[in-house]
Amino acid sequence: MTQDFQEINIQIPRTDKPRVVIIGGGFAGLNIMKAIDTRYYQVVVLDRHNYHTFQPLLYQVATAGLEPGSIAGPLRHFIENNEEVFFRMAKVTRINPERRTVTTPVGELKYDYLIIACGSRTNYFGKDEAFKEALPLKQIPQALNMRSHILQNFEKAVNTVDSYELRSLLNIVIVGGGPTGVEVAGALGELRSHVLPKDYPELNFRQMQIYLVEGLPRLLNGMSDKAGRKATKYLKDFEVNLMLNTIVESYDGKEVRLNNGEIIPTQTLVWAAGVKGNIIPGLPDEVIERDRILVDDFNRVRGSDSIFAVGDIAQLTTEKYPKGLPMLAPVAIQQGERLAKNLNRAMEGKEMKPFKYTNKGYMATVGRNRAVVDMPNGWSFGGFMAWMAWMFIHLLYLIGFRNKLVVLNNWIWNYFTYDRGIRLIIRPFNREEKLKQHEAEISGVK
Amino acid sequence: MTQDFQEINIQIPRTDKPRVVIIGGGFAGLNIMKAIDTRYYQVVVLDRHNYHTFQPLLYQVATAGLEPGSIAGPLRHFIENNEEVFFRMAKVTRINPERRTVTTPVGELKYDYLIIACGSRTNYFGKDEAFKEALPLKQIPQALNMRSHILQNFEKAVNTVDSYELRSLLNIVIVGGGPTGVEVAGALGELRSHVLPKDYPELNFRQMQIYLVEGLPRLLNGMSDKAGRKATKYLKDFEVNLMLNTIVESYDGKEVRLNNGEIIPTQTLVWAAGVKGNIIPGLPDEVIERDRILVDDFNRVRGSDSIFAVGDIAQLTTEKYPKGLPMLAPVAIQQGERLAKNLNRAMEGKEMKPFKYTNKGYMATVGRNRAVVDMPNGWSFGGFMAWMAWMFIHLLYLIGFRNKLVVLNNWIWNYFTYDRGIRLIIRPFNREEKLKQHEAEISGVK
Repeated sequence: MTQDFQEINIQIPRTDKPRVVIIGGGFAGLNIMKAIDTRYYQVVVLDRHNYHTFQPLLYQVATAGLEPGSIAGPLRHFIENNEEVFFRMAKVTRINPERRTVTTPVGELKYDYLIIACGSRTNYFGKDEAFKEALPLKQIPQALNMRSHILQNFEKAVNTVDSYELRSLLNIVIVGGGPTGVEVAGALGELRSHVLPKDYPELNFRQMQIYLVEGLPRLLNGMSDKAGRKATKYLKDFEVNLMLNTIVESYDGKEVRLNNGEIIPTQTLVWAAGVKGNIIPGLPDEVIERDRILVDDFNRVRGSDSIFAVGDIAQLTTEKYPKGLPMLAPVAIQQGERLAKNLNRAMEGKEMKPFKYTNKGYMATVGRNRAVVDMPNGWSFGGFMAWMAWMFIHLLYLIGFRNKLVVLNNWIWNYFTYDRGIRLIIRPFNREEKLKQHEAEISGVK
Repeated sequence: MTQDFQEINIQIPRTDKPRVVIIGGGFAGLNIMKAIDTRYYQVVVLDRHNYHTFQPLLYQVATAGLEPGSIAGPLRHFIENNEEVFFRMAKVTRINPERRTVTTPVGELKYDYLIIACGSRTNYFGKDEAFKEALPLKQIPQALNMRSHILQNFEKAVNTVDSYELRSLLNIVIVGGGPTGVEVAGALGELRSHVLPKDYPELNFRQMQIYLVEGLPRLLNGMSDKAGRKATKYLKDFEVNLMLNTIVESYDGKEVRLNNGEIIPTQTLVWAAGVKGNIIPGLPDEVIERDRILVDDFNRVRGSDSIFAVGDIAQLTTEKYPKGLPMLAPVAIQQGERLAKNLNRAMEGKEMKPFKYTNKGYMATVGRNRAVVDMPNGWSFGGFMAWMAWMFIHLLYLIGFRNKLVVLNNWIWNYFTYDRGIRLIIRPFNREEKLKQHEAEISGVK
């Protein structure tokens, strides 16, 4: 190994092996790290965080059910004992295909193969400015912000006499009837039934309204009709107000304006309306379509044989998915595995195999004893069994044995005590800080 | 119950019962809440945080061994099912004995009896400005700051070629050879032996020096000579550099200057040198002595029969403790219990009993299998048995069954895997934010 000092700043020893640079330690990146053969490649993983986030459980961090460390795993943990894999905490701000480098605030890094696996970010559908006060839910700090903000509002509410102000502190509006929106709404409904009235006996919780606003005429549009109907019923059990066929027009931090003219006073607007590819500048425009990178069946970026894209950021259309594969963890996991194996095969002189998505089913949980599952064979079920299946699958896919153990313990505890022990305002929500994060997020770049 | 609208802002219904206002939900405040009889009193607890912090384990949060939520319990949890106890998240900025109120940013609150239990804060011994870059360790956000800061320094170090800069990123200096300093030094020594080399194979950990600087000629000055000697030996096992009889003169964020002229390059100075009472303005000067409030045997503030002080903030001298009782959790717990019982007795027409401190022994841990215990009978022991005793006692006193369970699980996990799973930079350390917190802390006022 010799140190290559032509690389400015990012210090990785140069070896004979081709270097694979992976942008992002999410589901796709992590599975590449696991499956790629380091007898053939040197691997460098870049991520702006030093941890992998298990996003499907973020909403439980936001609603005081889990601690952040339970759903995060240090990325360096996954490369222990493998001296051909390097990690650098760095946010990639530009890809330079002509020089075969990526740019980061701590320097440039050369690649032989580049894998773009930087996932997605919150999509405000062009209304970034109108929704700067909304609370997104894509990262752990955002989940902690939501937890602090909601608890701080209750602490303010006990001292509030103005009835309009009081309602705006108690009300919560969730935008988006997909899995995240449904899960947040259900978890908040549970908090309102079981936890908050004990904590705040001085408040009248009939004044607290939870609204779930969805533009389409149904919930869980990516799932079966049956799943959508069941989720609707379950949310009604938790007394969540469903507003279907309704669009949120704007939000000023105090009042939400809907397209039907209605105004809801609320200081908490949770944005779960959608995500978009987290595009990094530098690739030619013709490979980008609606914020995703066009790839072929081998996850190669069009027109390049050294750049790949996998997971949410990759736009791969198939017969069954003419608009592109869904932006979901299973797709990212499978693409990551396939790509790593293909890179290994290439070095073994074997042909690459095209990616084929295996639908393993879809699921969403609403709360205690209530979830919906669509099986790949078209069978759909709900209720307690679906809820058990949801928990089992999430524990199975959760990264790291310690995390599985901690989350399972918490779930058992929360189930039997009806408690949410993490209702702590550890770092108070700070509006200015939040607006800065919003700027950073909408400006893109992982 | 009638609402008393003469109280501006802090909304608590006024009843016939005298109102006891407790400032601070620490060990003292919590034990008053538990023991006071709400058939006699209305109780209002004020704290700037919405949670109780189990401070003895803060250093494990700072060193990635425990999650913050494991050592914190929501204060409202302790008042569930007791409608005569109220909590308000509010930082008391002034006591107004003439009006019998306390002032907070969210309004004033009347009291009939006031209990000052606002603990202590970091003591820079008059050099607040010189040590503004130091990392204190009195609160959970400070512990999280330390965790993030240290991990960020390692992430920088892997990209650093300048050897002086590299040393300053790796070195850690801890000021203060009391229990906190010893515990932090030991925990960092363990991290360096077992966790960091696996995470950062590209770094040479012989370049990382851990220094513990103490002005006195020995460690653990509050404990027996034997305990001090054992702690010294244990820290040497972990290859911590002990600098006794040495004073830290100043720190600019890059270099520590010692009184022997030596300069140590370090970007991490942990301040564990001492605490002082967290004085709130408003009491007459004559009741305050070296930042503590003078109280009599009944924890009454001198010259008042409606104001009490307990715990770290209270200065109570006895024959055995002519300089005042030590600022330790057991004193706070015992004073809180005694005071609550005395207030109950007063309502039952019984005489109050003077406070008597029962020394239950002292202990400190250094790390894996190594701790020291001084028993009340003068017997002193160390090693594995002391370490087990330390863990048992800390679990016993840790608040809440969920926390006990979570901490125990983590300890077992950490012991057998030699791992520290929470090495996550969830909220990056932000120097400006830290300096703001420093300003807030040195300006005092809980």
